[in-house]
Amino acid sequence: MKLLLIGFGTVGQGLAELLIEKKVDLKRNHGLDCTVVGISDMLKGSCHNPAGIDLEAALAKAAAGEPLSSLPGGCDWDALRMIDEADADVMCEITYTDIKTGQPATDHIRAALAKGMSVTTTNKGPTALASQELTELAAANDARFLFEGTVMAGTPLLNLVRETLAGSEITEMKGILNGTTNFILTRMEGGMDYAAALAEAQELGYAEAVPDADVLGFDALAKVTILANTVFGAALRPADSPCRGITEITPAQIEAAAADGKKYKLIGRVWRDGAAVRASVGPQLVDTTHPLAGVGGATNAMTITTDTLGDVTIVGPGAGRRETGFSLLNDLIHLGRS
Amino acid sequence: MKLLLIGFGTVGQGLAELLIEKKVDLKRNHGLDCTVVGISDMLKGSCHNPAGIDLEAALAKAAAGEPLSSLPGGCDWDALRMIDEADADVMCEITYTDIKTGQPATDHIRAALAKGMSVTTTNKGPTALASQELTELAAANDARFLFEGTVMAGTPLLNLVRETLAGSEITEMKGILNGTTNFILTRMEGGMDYAAALAEAQELGYAEAVPDADVLGFDALAKVTILANTVFGAALRPADSPCRGITEITPAQIEAAAADGKKYKLIGRVWRDGAAVRASVGPQLVDTTHPLAGVGGATNAMTITTDTLGDVTIVGPGAGRRETGFSLLNDLIHLGRS
Repeated sequence: MKLLLIGFGTVGQGLAELLIEKKVDLKRNHGLDCTVVGISDMLKGSCHNPAGIDLEAALAKAAAGEPLSSLPGGCDWDALRMIDEADADVMCEITYTDIKTGQPATDHIRAALAKGMSVTTTNKGPTALASQELTELAAANDARFLFEGTVMAGTPLLNLVRETLAGSEITEMKGILNGTTNFILTRMEGGMDYAAALAEAQELGYAEAVPDADVLGFDALAKVTILANTVFGAALRPADSPCRGITEITPAQIEAAAADGKKYKLIGRVWRDGAAVRASVGPQLVDTTHPLAGVGGATNAMTITTDTLGDVTIVGPGAGRRETGFSLLNDLIHLGRS
Repeated sequence: MKLLLIGFGTVGQGLAELLIEKKVDLKRNHGLDCTVVGISDMLKGSCHNPAGIDLEAALAKAAAGEPLSSLPGGCDWDALRMIDEADADVMCEITYTDIKTGQPATDHIRAALAKGMSVTTTNKGPTALASQELTELAAANDARFLFEGTVMAGTPLLNLVRETLAGSEITEMKGILNGTTNFILTRMEGGMDYAAALAEAQELGYAEAVPDADVLGFDALAKVTILANTVFGAALRPADSPCRGITEITPAQIEAAAADGKKYKLIGRVWRDGAAVRASVGPQLVDTTHPLAGVGGATNAMTITTDTLGDVTIVGPGAGRRETGFSLLNDLIHLGRS
């Protein structure tokens, strides 16, 4: 399986590390022999080598801040030229997320699929805004479009729904899809106020300097939109659904909730409402006996309501270099099987 | 796909109901068209009809306490004769569990696999005692042996490990595998003593009149043995692992634990210890911030420790007519795909 990595930041490097570490295991247990033939990163430069790029060397260049173009096969191709020129089976789209436009990732994915290359991505922009178009484009070109890592990183939520709940009808999904806000709320339960908890999250690298995408709920909104459109077959855009963040929750409210046996969680929710599919993001009170109440810190969780099993909840990491890199590897294994 | 149902108790009837309810969906979404050609139940009698047994009629007979032999194709064949005479693709083994001998279910499964019939079962006896032999026998006869429902009923734990954590190394699994004891412990947290909580569990049908298999830990022990032998590739027998139940836990201990921010849970655990695989069942103190602590009542849960994602926890039903019936349906969908 010949791969292109479009983007070589934290997640791309996490995938490269896993491909090195698990090379023998992937071949033996899954018949999967991956060769990265091209890498293109807007900041780190590009490299194209049909015989296979030395991933150890590429990681060393990234760690040293040296350009990938100094590797054998180094070149100045941008992402679209790399997709056009390289002969590969699968493109891994792991550039930055722009949730307003989905670009330039959407154009990268369109170009790869149009060439008959399958795509796996962790990029929430194209998946939230254009999953239907991209899935249809994949089918028309005998390729596949997978995106396990867009929701809950490598925690296998989308695979769980597709592979292991097959035969069940899903009527609702609700959960904790943003680790940063869950970390802040967990710290506030311990008595901190919002500003101090946010500062600690920023210090630990969970929250960005401009934390709006997390604390105002937009990151969770992108994820519920992905679930609405891919699991429930809707055609929602992020702006179609109500979205509130956690910035107005006070320590007094959290204390009052605790006295009442409840906790505040930022809940992303998708549900069937007659023939329609609805989605929302906002703080909700969760009873302490519910599985979501026990999910503390930066962990994510999703409760899936089915017609066969009632509620099934999956809890796992929602971010991380290795954890998100694994989502791509998991998609590659599924692509290798089919 | 032609099916045999060996056993037509609660779980067999739950499967029959799902096959009726989901007939159109299974054909449309999974290309699966199931016909039950034989049913054999030790108490309810037998019926063999190559054209397909009317499942509504079979359920009505069971509800009315009338023998299945009064249906078209009614006969006096026992399970082994049914397996021998009938032409089927898959046998569903859903007779009672004998955890000491695994019989007569193990003989049923051997006979079906030897004929090249695939098998799906919810029966913990043969799976705990002979999973390796049966998996090898299946492979030798170009058949498959699946047993999703033996652990956590239809909650897709085994499928999760096989399908969606592919590429990960699992180093430990620990969880709540017995709903009856978890219900009793949850009630004891509310202030009841053990005897009163057990009596309530018996009244609600969670616990049997002789509750030993649950409260002494033997049911959970069968399940951890299945996990050790199938997920971790060990060759343990139930008696090889230490097993303690919940009968000695006192309300005072539960109260002291709560004051310390902890809860008692009956934990089944399997882990790698160097080259060996170990398993155990016993009450353990779980911190209230751990996802397992929030699992109350008759619900089951399992935390899977991986090298790629750290901990992933799945929470869902561990029993129930429809929930366990779904485990068989899920296996049938996977058999239909392969």
